[in-house]
Amino acid sequence: MKSFKPYFAVIFTSTHTEDTKGYAEMANKMETLAKQQKGYIGIDSARNDSSTGLSAGVGITVSYWESMEAIKNWKANTEHLFAQQKGREQWYNWYNVKICQVEREYEFEKL
Amino acid sequence: MKSFKPYFAVIFTSTHTEDTKGYAEMANKMETLAKQQKGYIGIDSARNDSSTGLSAGVGITVSYWESMEAIKNWKANTEHLFAQQKGREQWYNWYNVKICQVEREYEFEKL
Repeated sequence: MKSFKPYFAVIFTSTHTEDTKGYAEMANKMETLAKQQKGYIGIDSARNDSSTGLSAGVGITVSYWESMEAIKNWKANTEHLFAQQKGREQWYNWYNVKICQVEREYEFEKL
Repeated sequence: MKSFKPYFAVIFTSTHTEDTKGYAEMANKMETLAKQQKGYIGIDSARNDSSTGLSAGVGITVSYWESMEAIKNWKANTEHLFAQQKGREQWYNWYNVKICQVEREYEFEKL
């Protein structure tokens, strides 16, 4: 049996306001900054078209971290705190943050 | 301090093949079926346009469950097994499944 070292995930689910000014630049900046943090493992992000389907406009970003401490440090990062504040004031109608421990995983890749 | 009952998340990250025939119908059918399972809590899903940006075509679906047993049962559901098989044969180039325990969460809603 393969050994598995638990790590951590932050699931960020959100819906946007109409005001997207500056959002893409900030999101890119934060992704670049997150990658420089101690304990960062990876990030995946997807957002639905704001016009189609039941979950229109819903976005999910999942970032992965080596420890809870790394997550805490990233949450308290000064530039990230500024971005969070801007997000609440301008870009997000709603968001939910879930802190998780990844217990196992598996993968499929087409040959 | 608010008490928090841990629950579980399945993070499904994927990239699609070109062949999307039948995919939307199956995805809807599986979402409806998942909602009928014992221990089901909720589901969020987002997919990027296949044409734009660094993470073009990446999709993330996160489903939430009351227990690991509920996750196991859903994975082994006969109709779901068929959909998984179809997915590997036809719709997905790649996918990754992470089983997580949600340890805490918080939420923001604009007034």
